[in-house]
Amino acid sequence: MRRVAVIGAGMTRFGERWEEGMRELAVEAGVRALESAGVRGSQIQALYVGNMSGGRFIGQEHIGALAADYLGLNPIPSTRIEAACASGGLAFRQAYLSIAGGEFDLVVAGGIEKMTDVLTGQATTTLGGAADQEWETFFGATFPSIYALMARRHMHEYGTTEEQLAMVAVKNHDNGLKNPYAQFRKKITVEDVLNSSPVATPLKLLDCSPITDGAAAVVLASEEMARKITDDPVWINASAQASDTLALHSRSSFTSIPATRLAAEKAYQKAGIKPKDVDVAEVHDCFTIAEIMAVEDLGFVPKGEGGKAYEEGMFELGSDISVNTSGGLKACGHPVGATGIKQVAEVFWQLRGEAGERQIPDAEIGLTHNVGGSGATVVVHVLSRYPDLRQR
Amino acid sequence: MRRVAVIGAGMTRFGERWEEGMRELAVEAGVRALESAGVRGSQIQALYVGNMSGGRFIGQEHIGALAADYLGLNPIPSTRIEAACASGGLAFRQAYLSIAGGEFDLVVAGGIEKMTDVLTGQATTTLGGAADQEWETFFGATFPSIYALMARRHMHEYGTTEEQLAMVAVKNHDNGLKNPYAQFRKKITVEDVLNSSPVATPLKLLDCSPITDGAAAVVLASEEMARKITDDPVWINASAQASDTLALHSRSSFTSIPATRLAAEKAYQKAGIKPKDVDVAEVHDCFTIAEIMAVEDLGFVPKGEGGKAYEEGMFELGSDISVNTSGGLKACGHPVGATGIKQVAEVFWQLRGEAGERQIPDAEIGLTHNVGGSGATVVVHVLSRYPDLRQR
Repeated sequence: MRRVAVIGAGMTRFGERWEEGMRELAVEAGVRALESAGVRGSQIQALYVGNMSGGRFIGQEHIGALAADYLGLNPIPSTRIEAACASGGLAFRQAYLSIAGGEFDLVVAGGIEKMTDVLTGQATTTLGGAADQEWETFFGATFPSIYALMARRHMHEYGTTEEQLAMVAVKNHDNGLKNPYAQFRKKITVEDVLNSSPVATPLKLLDCSPITDGAAAVVLASEEMARKITDDPVWINASAQASDTLALHSRSSFTSIPATRLAAEKAYQKAGIKPKDVDVAEVHDCFTIAEIMAVEDLGFVPKGEGGKAYEEGMFELGSDISVNTSGGLKACGHPVGATGIKQVAEVFWQLRGEAGERQIPDAEIGLTHNVGGSGATVVVHVLSRYPDLRQR
Repeated sequence: MRRVAVIGAGMTRFGERWEEGMRELAVEAGVRALESAGVRGSQIQALYVGNMSGGRFIGQEHIGALAADYLGLNPIPSTRIEAACASGGLAFRQAYLSIAGGEFDLVVAGGIEKMTDVLTGQATTTLGGAADQEWETFFGATFPSIYALMARRHMHEYGTTEEQLAMVAVKNHDNGLKNPYAQFRKKITVEDVLNSSPVATPLKLLDCSPITDGAAAVVLASEEMARKITDDPVWINASAQASDTLALHSRSSFTSIPATRLAAEKAYQKAGIKPKDVDVAEVHDCFTIAEIMAVEDLGFVPKGEGGKAYEEGMFELGSDISVNTSGGLKACGHPVGATGIKQVAEVFWQLRGEAGERQIPDAEIGLTHNVGGSGATVVVHVLSRYPDLRQR
């Protein structure tokens, strides 16, 4: 299969975007991505769009066609991908496969979600569609409650503390402060997190990612096309996806997400790297416990040592592995269909040295980790400055 | 890119399936497809699932993960594709691309929709998500009304009659009579159609496809894999997709679907055939007028002559081009996410000589035509007994 590069990225400010509907957000992110790549819309050959629940949030399905229409990209193929909160990461993966396999040379992968324009409670109910409707959501389980089970068990098995969970949120808010696209640009303290309202004990309000409107888009190109367009491509060294049971109760452990381990192992193997080679990672911190499990399951620290790592300042901006430099889902915001694409955009900017105030030094290898539901879908990508990491 | 074959197909009975939920239907179709192909689940490397609106119909998104879970296919990648009523066709296309491009060798493409378990009116409202929510659905436009506009204009421009529209339904019911999977196995007459309740004039109840529960699945294989498994593969000679404006009012004509013309032209070119070479076609007859426009836009008859063709008995079972031998959306039923896959399954059976009572003689080349919304997404596939139709 062929090498594929990312050559441009754009996103909207994430947040409560009362003045814009889904189509306006799609256009804002898409046009910025095209401008970033230095290509015209007429050069684009296909569009893949990640969106979780346009049908329930705003009564609109057929999001691929909508995005192509309003971006003026007709009549190229446009395809919506859905895998709950991993929708964006899977849209990126399908775009990658379509170029690597030889069907297209220049493709846009986007992600979008318009979540705030709903009645109280309806967003959480809609997000429940990512879990098992018959065996979890129907009986009242919400995502905070599902991740609270994981947090409680992680605390029981490994001694992880609520303070350690809080440190994840504090770090991500520190990073979000430096990101002009972030929903929350506000410093918080461990005390702020611990004193925030309980949502599903032990998770409190500031342990949870927010409800967000937003869109993000990236431009992918075949090696030949990328070299024609830019001197500064970011290469996709690996793309890997794994599935697991839809319901948490069907798993053998609550403290690990096996699909993360499987996808990561495959991605490291394809890219020819070890976890410690990663310089910058955008991981799926829908809740603070999710980031702690992610850094463990991705192999950045041994299982059970995630909590302690945050006390030691690991994963902060500029450390050996900078995690969630964008602010993560927690501070940058979590428009579910857009998150996986935003992760790629952030890593793209870090690897190009275009991350502004939050730029880390000498970023060479980046990773994105996007989770759907409580871990039924996971997709991991490795990106870098090198077309082949085995030859660096 | 590599050659890809379909080596197995399975589907559920379409209809009101009160005893089964979405996951039971998924398993029923998936297991039948695996049995048809003679492969085990453990050999499958990826799953693509078409579904339009699980979120609104039954509160369940994340349909890819659900299907992999209940089919026992974890941890392979499973991806849901949505493009309204073209979701199944696009899922098949992504599965095709994933093998043609070299990522996988053995993939299941499935489609599913559970539509009947809703309150009165809610199915039509949910289907409105395939149109433009802000400019069509919000103002009360339903799909029957949108296609009624097309029908009225077609009658005005070309003299198409309500009797001719009715003949489409009569033919498809005749075919459905011979299909054990069909929702309606009941002969109807032109008079029955003309006397049925008006839905959106000139379309009457029997001009409209029904609300349906159902699932379908096919197994795709690379050439090397296909030749190992079967002596009787059906080859995918072309896959083509096109987009158009989401809203009907943005188009320059109401009597043609440009994305059908574009996708068909590309498919014919890729496959190296002319429209008249097609022996059997499953086309998107969500309404009777849609089939008339389809046979015109696919080039089976000149524009405007579609209605008359039905008076002459063209497109009946065993004619030069047999159209909708399954009964089509009208009689076989239209579980929207499953329809595009059912179309492939029907063509597969016809080309293999496994279509039972509705088998047409000497079927060599088949075509599937799947439309999303009022034509914003169209996907066309050409399948045949020949790996390369230029060398037949």
